[in-house]
Amino acid sequence: MARWGGQAHPAMKVPSPSVREAASMYGTAVAIFLVILVAALQGSEPPESPFPYRIPLDPEGTLELSWNVSYVQETIHFQLLVRELKAGVLFGMSDRGELENADLVVLWTDGDSAYFGDAWSDQKGWIHLDAQQDYQLLRAQRTPEGLSLLFKRPFGTCDPKDYLIEDGTVHLVYGILEEPFWSLEAINTSALHTGLQRVQLLKPNVSVPALPADMRTMEVRAPDVLVPGQETTYWCYITELPDGFPRHHIVMYEPIVTEGNEALVHHMEVFQCAAEFESFPQFNGPCDSKMKPSRLNYCRHVLAAWALGAKAFYYPEEAGLAFGGAGSSRFLRLEVHYHNPLKIEGRRDSSGIRLYYTATLRRFDAGIMELGLVYTPVMAIPPQETAFVLTGYCTDKCTQLALPPSGIHIFASQLHTHLTGRKVVTVLARDGREREVVNRDDHYSPHFQEIRMLKKVVSVHPGDVLITSCTYNTEDRKLATVGGFGILEEMCVNYVHYYPQTQLELCKSAVDPGFLQKYFHFVNRFNGEEVCTCPQASVPEQFATVPWNSFNRQVLSALYGFAPISMHCNKSSAVRFQGEWNLQPLPEIISKLEEPTPQCPASRGRSPAGPTVVDIGGGKG
Amino acid sequence: MARWGGQAHPAMKVPSPSVREAASMYGTAVAIFLVILVAALQGSEPPESPFPYRIPLDPEGTLELSWNVSYVQETIHFQLLVRELKAGVLFGMSDRGELENADLVVLWTDGDSAYFGDAWSDQKGWIHLDAQQDYQLLRAQRTPEGLSLLFKRPFGTCDPKDYLIEDGTVHLVYGILEEPFWSLEAINTSALHTGLQRVQLLKPNVSVPALPADMRTMEVRAPDVLVPGQETTYWCYITELPDGFPRHHIVMYEPIVTEGNEALVHHMEVFQCAAEFESFPQFNGPCDSKMKPSRLNYCRHVLAAWALGAKAFYYPEEAGLAFGGAGSSRFLRLEVHYHNPLKIEGRRDSSGIRLYYTATLRRFDAGIMELGLVYTPVMAIPPQETAFVLTGYCTDKCTQLALPPSGIHIFASQLHTHLTGRKVVTVLARDGREREVVNRDDHYSPHFQEIRMLKKVVSVHPGDVLITSCTYNTEDRKLATVGGFGILEEMCVNYVHYYPQTQLELCKSAVDPGFLQKYFHFVNRFNGEEVCTCPQASVPEQFATVPWNSFNRQVLSALYGFAPISMHCNKSSAVRFQGEWNLQPLPEIISKLEEPTPQCPASRGRSPAGPTVVDIGGGKG
Repeated sequence: MARWGGQAHPAMKVPSPSVREAASMYGTAVAIFLVILVAALQGSEPPESPFPYRIPLDPEGTLELSWNVSYVQETIHFQLLVRELKAGVLFGMSDRGELENADLVVLWTDGDSAYFGDAWSDQKGWIHLDAQQDYQLLRAQRTPEGLSLLFKRPFGTCDPKDYLIEDGTVHLVYGILEEPFWSLEAINTSALHTGLQRVQLLKPNVSVPALPADMRTMEVRAPDVLVPGQETTYWCYITELPDGFPRHHIVMYEPIVTEGNEALVHHMEVFQCAAEFESFPQFNGPCDSKMKPSRLNYCRHVLAAWALGAKAFYYPEEAGLAFGGAGSSRFLRLEVHYHNPLKIEGRRDSSGIRLYYTATLRRFDAGIMELGLVYTPVMAIPPQETAFVLTGYCTDKCTQLALPPSGIHIFASQLHTHLTGRKVVTVLARDGREREVVNRDDHYSPHFQEIRMLKKVVSVHPGDVLITSCTYNTEDRKLATVGGFGILEEMCVNYVHYYPQTQLELCKSAVDPGFLQKYFHFVNRFNGEEVCTCPQASVPEQFATVPWNSFNRQVLSALYGFAPISMHCNKSSAVRFQGEWNLQPLPEIISKLEEPTPQCPASRGRSPAGPTVVDIGGGKG
Repeated sequence: MARWGGQAHPAMKVPSPSVREAASMYGTAVAIFLVILVAALQGSEPPESPFPYRIPLDPEGTLELSWNVSYVQETIHFQLLVRELKAGVLFGMSDRGELENADLVVLWTDGDSAYFGDAWSDQKGWIHLDAQQDYQLLRAQRTPEGLSLLFKRPFGTCDPKDYLIEDGTVHLVYGILEEPFWSLEAINTSALHTGLQRVQLLKPNVSVPALPADMRTMEVRAPDVLVPGQETTYWCYITELPDGFPRHHIVMYEPIVTEGNEALVHHMEVFQCAAEFESFPQFNGPCDSKMKPSRLNYCRHVLAAWALGAKAFYYPEEAGLAFGGAGSSRFLRLEVHYHNPLKIEGRRDSSGIRLYYTATLRRFDAGIMELGLVYTPVMAIPPQETAFVLTGYCTDKCTQLALPPSGIHIFASQLHTHLTGRKVVTVLARDGREREVVNRDDHYSPHFQEIRMLKKVVSVHPGDVLITSCTYNTEDRKLATVGGFGILEEMCVNYVHYYPQTQLELCKSAVDPGFLQKYFHFVNRFNGEEVCTCPQASVPEQFATVPWNSFNRQVLSALYGFAPISMHCNKSSAVRFQGEWNLQPLPEIISKLEEPTPQCPASRGRSPAGPTVVDIGGGKG
């Protein structure tokens, strides 16, 4: 039995209790029983660098995960710190954070010996040992903070019971074993204290760029808003830059969320108003208020965007987001989306965004462009769907018109849907062929909308097509979910961050409304008298009366995949580029990107065939 | 280096030529260079029994494959006999017999050493070594007949590059290496002499039943038919049993195909005529002839069915197919489907079926029932589809009415489609839940329509539903493929063989024609003026005018998955059981069978990491 790296394991002599006795001795006392002997360490090596990423797994911070990523070896090294070890711990990943059908590593004791093994939970939460052991324990070490487990796993294992670690969100799960278990198969995750944490495991190898020495900050915050006691509020606040404020580059920004309101502030954006107006009226109120001056609709040039779960945002060293100076408005609009499902009254908020800017202009102006679907009810998801896909297009006609001949370079992306979004992907197509993925998240969660730096900058040329598809789960809905601004309505958006900046701020689509009316007409004829096609009815009302049988569902999906679209190819100020944008044909795609086949790790023979040997009591190790 | 089972390998001392020289010495001469040393044999064992199954792979019979199946170990042992070894051989499996994207084992030489490895071919036919070696060489032995290679492979390997060996048809592929290759990666399958052979690898563990001592034979053959020079002919021939022929049980039958006409005779069936008519007119001509007496439509009780690729058929020991005696007609109708795409004129044929029967009646009468789709053009497949699914139902209402309280037991099944069929499956559902698969072939080929004994007898009770789905590929078609009898039309049929016999001979469905007309009407309205909905047009004419855009395809598919059906719940003599069979609701399925997850072999560590070591020349082994 080999030891890794000569680590010393404190060995304690204790009487060896029977399993039944041991089971009654659970609690922190059990922790001192655990003396970990690590076997089968051939082929393992220490991580080359310390762990750049670290998060607490549980709200109390008893479990802390650190990790690093080797893209060459396609392997992640994990270091799991267990602060108050009881009888064991389980850690792993699952599709959406559930403890069933999860891919797990388990450290457990039967009260006598203890074990570390690669396992999985079935759909009822029962745990089973994996036939193939792909998590490899490299070190188990007591530290002053707690037990530290070092283990590694390839991104893909080719074991059908294992989670495939991909780009995008990963739902980590954990569980605390409070008592010994006779065997791994005796553990059911539903009986444990468990939880989940969302994280992007495969962080890009992009370092934080150097920040200019003359960097200054500016806070754009709504002063002391009384958050309305309703589910959805978009709050609008107008502020202005100092008189004579010259042209600067924003190089970084970060959210300022009023303490205690972290769950209330869903997303925030800072817009610059249109330069053609000398001034804009003051306003501080709901964006849909009748009191809102209509001129504020001309404040749509995005300066910064933040959503729940994101951290500070840095521009690449060669680009910054221009603001101030001649030809740009001094007026800024802050929009804060408050999500208040408990309809709390009387809560005050002063959240906003802190801009970091420099007068030393960088080489390129950066911009943000909105891809995906127009916020319109014509794009709808039937209820009770597990994976309904809506797609929005940025057509060749629009990129041809709006992009410079040398193209633009997308360096970051923020995916956005409301509550039923489950996957989002944007693909770039050229000459009818899908070429590359701009950003993909197959485990997307609306509760974790980070702005993500791309692993590889994607260049978009005039004539290219950008296709953004969102997959929705409406199993808990009784009526159709239509597109719109409300949190119970849906969106499908990819905010791409790029340089050099262009006039194109919004490149989105929706089905042609006339073709949708043909659908309602057809549904009415085919299904009898159940559907209201009275011309007075609004589109949401029409969708609400559709009897959602398999036929009407599939025909709607077929319609969205076939009918012409209405394009929004817009500059700032809600102005379309010149051209005919209605009844546009859907971009024709003649070849799709292949789904990547997961790499199987080559060195299969090295993995242990069963759980790693662990011993309890009496052993010197 | 271990040797398996102490086999003696003849070692030959020869000069070791350079690769270039060796490359010029290809041909049978290279064969004597090959001295196989087998390494990495730990964990292997000889097959327990000899190989019950054997087929030639190529038309010349140079490659002969024998195999056996262990369902306990989920492993197949293969013995490949290479009669005239040149510079190597490749053998493997692929989805439909193509040499691209195939799972392969390769025996090759670089002119100096030789190797045996688990490999795969990419979509361009280039060969690559598998990261995971799942074919395990157990023995390489010279025999008087040629080189004999013994190797084994688990059904499933969990290597995404490997073929999953499942029930149903397997397309075996082979290739002959005529010269040495510098490396495996230098081989492209397109440059080799290659071929395919279809076979059911996972034969059931069912033994041939004992045959009665008093067994006699009877040949039902059309005498000297002049096969019409047209693509599709259904030939009808009436014959009769001897006067006073008493009740017997057919216990076995086999095809008699006139020598030279093997490719012409597509399938054959023997029907018994209806007992209510005293006599039937003689007839020997095309079934669609205007001269055919209409009374022959009352000859529809299936006695025997054979199709291309099938062998002799045996009934289970407890059942036989009754014919003769009081209450049954003496008249038989032989139907031979000639498939004559080359429109050969003047060919004569006397094919038919040889019945083996006994006067010693077995305990149960057996029967054949036809499941799937009615032969009607209302069920159609759009052109250019890669995997369009049509489904036929045998509803609970029909089984309730027609099956005995104790149910029936299906012991064999023959799947049938015409040229575009790619998959066929029949599933049994009870109380809205899919329960078990009756028969499934995910690599179905219309050119290999065996009657297959089921691994497990499936019992069907009154109220059960049988759902038969066929998947079609119409990539090479320009127009829709409609249901019908012609070889360019399609069928979706599962002939199930069962006991005890019931009156139910046919339990099939098709979409309600009225709902199909709603579809045509809708297509017309939605797509403009392109579709002919004139009431005079036939359904095939209507389908021929549909513009096959994605919308019309998906709506047709949605229609088939939603619209009510017309049931054919028929006794013999084309008579429906009493009841309302039109506008029946589609059976509602609330839970589907899960796709089985392939078992990964547990003992991963045993497999070698690379190709098995092989040596050339001079070695003693």
